Amino acid sequence: MTKITQNHKPIILVTNDDSYSAGGIRKLIALMRPLGKVVVVASEFPMSGMGHAITIKTPLRLKKVAEETDYEEYICNGTPVDCIKLGSQVVLKRKPDLVVSGINHGSNASINVIYSGTMAAVLEACIDGIPAIGFSLLEYSHDANFDHVDQYVTKIAQKVIADGLPEGVCLNVNIPAVSDEPIKGIQVCRQAHARWVEEFDSRQDPRGGDYHWLTGRFENDDKGEETDQFALEHNYVSIVPVHYDLTAHQAIAEVKSWKL
Amino acid sequence: MTKITQNHKPIILVTNDDSYSAGGIRKLIALMRPLGKVVVVASEFPMSGMGHAITIKTPLRLKKVAEETDYEEYICNGTPVDCIKLGSQVVLKRKPDLVVSGINHGSNASINVIYSGTMAAVLEACIDGIPAIGFSLLEYSHDANFDHVDQYVTKIAQKVIADGLPEGVCLNVNIPAVSDEPIKGIQVCRQAHARWVEEFDSRQDPRGGDYHWLTGRFENDDKGEETDQFALEHNYVSIVPVHYDLTAHQAIAEVKSWKL
Repeated sequence: MTKITQNHKPIILVTNDDSYSAGGIRKLIALMRPLGKVVVVASEFPMSGMGHAITIKTPLRLKKVAEETDYEEYICNGTPVDCIKLGSQVVLKRKPDLVVSGINHGSNASINVIYSGTMAAVLEACIDGIPAIGFSLLEYSHDANFDHVDQYVTKIAQKVIADGLPEGVCLNVNIPAVSDEPIKGIQVCRQAHARWVEEFDSRQDPRGGDYHWLTGRFENDDKGEETDQFALEHNYVSIVPVHYDLTAHQAIAEVKSWKL
Repeated sequence: MTKITQNHKPIILVTNDDSYSAGGIRKLIALMRPLGKVVVVASEFPMSGMGHAITIKTPLRLKKVAEETDYEEYICNGTPVDCIKLGSQVVLKRKPDLVVSGINHGSNASINVIYSGTMAAVLEACIDGIPAIGFSLLEYSHDANFDHVDQYVTKIAQKVIADGLPEGVCLNVNIPAVSDEPIKGIQVCRQAHARWVEEFDSRQDPRGGDYHWLTGRFENDDKGEETDQFALEHNYVSIVPVHYDLTAHQAIAEVKSWKL
């Protein structure tokens, strides 16, 4: 399907969860094109909050929407995880050398990593043994300002292209929004133990039926100074190395002691 | 909304990802009713493979479909994670004492934990500080035989009701399918490092358009004898303690050494 596998530049598969038309992915594509051959596979419509969802009840469709030298772009009706599967198996018919996802409009730091379609795409690549990085900006708006991200995105991607990542590890990179204060640098962190506290907005439709909009506020009780939230609040770019082993290894001995 | 909070039996919130009508959740409900007051909030339609998806673009609707002594049942149009949020915030207006999810028709061992709506519901409860257990049977069929699961489900749930779980930890319990050999017991394990290898089934519709069905085969290269896959293959029930910290703590020092 693709012609992009025919020479030796690194092949970079780009996706996101805000849809192919979002400002964040257009920025990420522009930053990746000088680094290799770029193939974009992204959802036609926004997929925020899709987590690690995959599409198994309906067929997936792919449409090529652009082809230039060392560049191809496809849109599909799938989730971000589907985009990685389709990109490797149907478009490239090989593993890309790097997967990048984003740049997300909004934070994927702390517990957001669990809900994030952007980071699910990264984890999916990681499960498949592909070096992968998720980039997110701490500004949710459609018109988010990405002017200040270039050096961080490029530097981190170049490093991973050159040297790879530890086995079974991918990166969750979050970048502070533009402010009066310049970004202070990069911090390597752990995920803060914060959570969303739900506040449903419950309403009645014109026929008297109840319905509920999911809303919430972010609560961070984790006061650790080595967390992504702490780094971001102090105007650093945060990098959390992430893996897909959900085992709570520290709890195995205690559960074993139950003698069930 | 609910009347179920008015006395002192433990309140057990039940959900799944195969829909409220699946045999697995009916079995789980039957096993939980002797243990406490049971509130079911489950999706009207199957939600397998939804991962940690949440519903933010459409409103959620809840419908009460049953009410008996110490029992209420609701169906909704949301994902398994939505069911936990709605159950706590809208139905109970308090945290339940226990969340149980399943019994899933099919394995959620190894990497399946990442894609599973059943386990996403459990993780969502865990993030919210609620003791939570996911149960899955290694038989995918709609008519799966759950006759042999009672003692394991009841024993594990009773233990968690009595003593709780370590902070930030939930349980992923998988049960072998019925076979000629009786189940040998329970093993506490780590998640095996296996993966799904995609094999898209690509077809053409009657108008000549290409479409792709996601299929795959499970590949386990993890030969560890302390894994959930190993336990299940040897006819043990597996319990993996699971947490929502995706940080690859072992990789932090190496990524720090990059001096970006």
